Amino acid sequence: MRRIDRSRVVFEYSSTSPPCAHVQPGEIVVVETQWAYGDHPVQEGDRLSDLDTSRCDPLTGPLFVEGATPGDTLAVHILAIDLVGQGGQGIIPGLGVLPWDDLPVAMFTPRDGAIEWLRGIRIPIRPNLGCIGVAPAGDAIPSIWPGDHGGNTDNRYCCPGSIVYFPVFHEGALLVMGDCHQMQGDGELCGVAPETASDVTLRCEVIKGEAIQRPRILAESRFMTVASAQTLEEAVRLATADFIDVLVTEKGFTPDEAYLMTAVEAHAEICQVVDPLMTARVAMDRAFFEAL
Amino acid sequence: MRRIDRSRVVFEYSSTSPPCAHVQPGEIVVVETQWAYGDHPVQEGDRLSDLDTSRCDPLTGPLFVEGATPGDTLAVHILAIDLVGQGGQGIIPGLGVLPWDDLPVAMFTPRDGAIEWLRGIRIPIRPNLGCIGVAPAGDAIPSIWPGDHGGNTDNRYCCPGSIVYFPVFHEGALLVMGDCHQMQGDGELCGVAPETASDVTLRCEVIKGEAIQRPRILAESRFMTVASAQTLEEAVRLATADFIDVLVTEKGFTPDEAYLMTAVEAHAEICQVVDPLMTARVAMDRAFFEAL
Repeated sequence: MRRIDRSRVVFEYSSTSPPCAHVQPGEIVVVETQWAYGDHPVQEGDRLSDLDTSRCDPLTGPLFVEGATPGDTLAVHILAIDLVGQGGQGIIPGLGVLPWDDLPVAMFTPRDGAIEWLRGIRIPIRPNLGCIGVAPAGDAIPSIWPGDHGGNTDNRYCCPGSIVYFPVFHEGALLVMGDCHQMQGDGELCGVAPETASDVTLRCEVIKGEAIQRPRILAESRFMTVASAQTLEEAVRLATADFIDVLVTEKGFTPDEAYLMTAVEAHAEICQVVDPLMTARVAMDRAFFEAL
Repeated sequence: MRRIDRSRVVFEYSSTSPPCAHVQPGEIVVVETQWAYGDHPVQEGDRLSDLDTSRCDPLTGPLFVEGATPGDTLAVHILAIDLVGQGGQGIIPGLGVLPWDDLPVAMFTPRDGAIEWLRGIRIPIRPNLGCIGVAPAGDAIPSIWPGDHGGNTDNRYCCPGSIVYFPVFHEGALLVMGDCHQMQGDGELCGVAPETASDVTLRCEVIKGEAIQRPRILAESRFMTVASAQTLEEAVRLATADFIDVLVTEKGFTPDEAYLMTAVEAHAEICQVVDPLMTARVAMDRAFFEAL
């Protein structure tokens, strides 16, 4: 299986980043990612307040997906995420939802599917990619930003078993990823979950001639639309409109039926509230969705 | 069992509403609630645009809980919610997250634990109380508002099996409730879920001398703090601070440990985005919470 080395990183989602590899639709590749701290030599007990955030969230890639052209949809099947090395969690003042001083970093080693967190608390591994996205329609976007290109959505459903759909804005889509967490709660409330390097096994497919505006995810047990905006309220509005569009286009609902359905069996949820834009999703149980 | 008749309604959370009943801690009572449309003669095919919202969300009560005094916590054990009659769902223009015209009301009859929704779609009943709250610390608050008193939080975890905790601001707490839904997704995105009358079987307990600032819920499978504010972001901040307070006070965490934990095993979630304030919760798996 082809491996994309974790030294091949960029720090932005950009149509001008030269591809580090060309992949075929259906080809299984392993993408190695660095942890969110990049090449900062972060160790147990270090403080994160001096971190240069322009060198955080290094993104492995871009992968040029053969055959993907503007107006298509890129489907990224996340087959597995293997954690590499230790994870580190601290506080970056000003990043989380509450004002807080910096805290010395604590390091956690995965063992038997879990970490021993602080206080000896055992927490099962649930890896997710905080960052995964394509080259955006317009100017380059720094790695720590989410948007219509995906990016730093910190969505815990960017995880093994999920198919993540992206709009294709440029030839080859130019897929990048990083910022893996050992586990992360919705919101990523203190701004930093246990950050880790990882090996991501994935397969890309191209859906020709089907355009979407923003990311969607078919996870093992849920389907969702995902949107980022200045406020959570606006992100919810965008994700709701996208969800209605799915029900109308794919399920034959009228727009009125689709809007009524959003208050019945769809859930507005928070991906993260700590990045430069807020990210929300509207999600539905997958079995219910597929039976519609 | 004592029944509180659904004719005994108020339209505000208020310390000056005369109690309609006095209940003892531990006493099981059935509280009958009207549907959210109150005495508007809403029928299949009606439109909701002329609804007088000051007469919406009638609240049965207040119940004066004996022994509850300011500085205590009121624990409301929701033992059962039985739906009464049909549920009705339409659109009230300006209420949901998207601009939309009014829609004729559709009526749904519960049968065998489900309704037949539009398009013949079977949807299981999952009743929740959109409104449940106590008399607020300050001035009276209209029934459609959420706040530190609880109120119109449209939290789907205000459901059978949950214990809902409220601050006690006044003698007797003055508990009121209404706005039952046959089921409701997080966000209540179009502004109206299938609205129904209900019979709520509950038991109140008083936790003496333990003050909380805002509602908390111990649901069958989750524990959560709940907060309402002008923006979802601010509601998330308040609920996060409350969650940290719980981990510090009840579990012996340091504040730093508690804040770090919020990004690991707590989830910031949306209750509703369609009422005069936004409501968010921070929730954790109950078994994990109880093992801490």
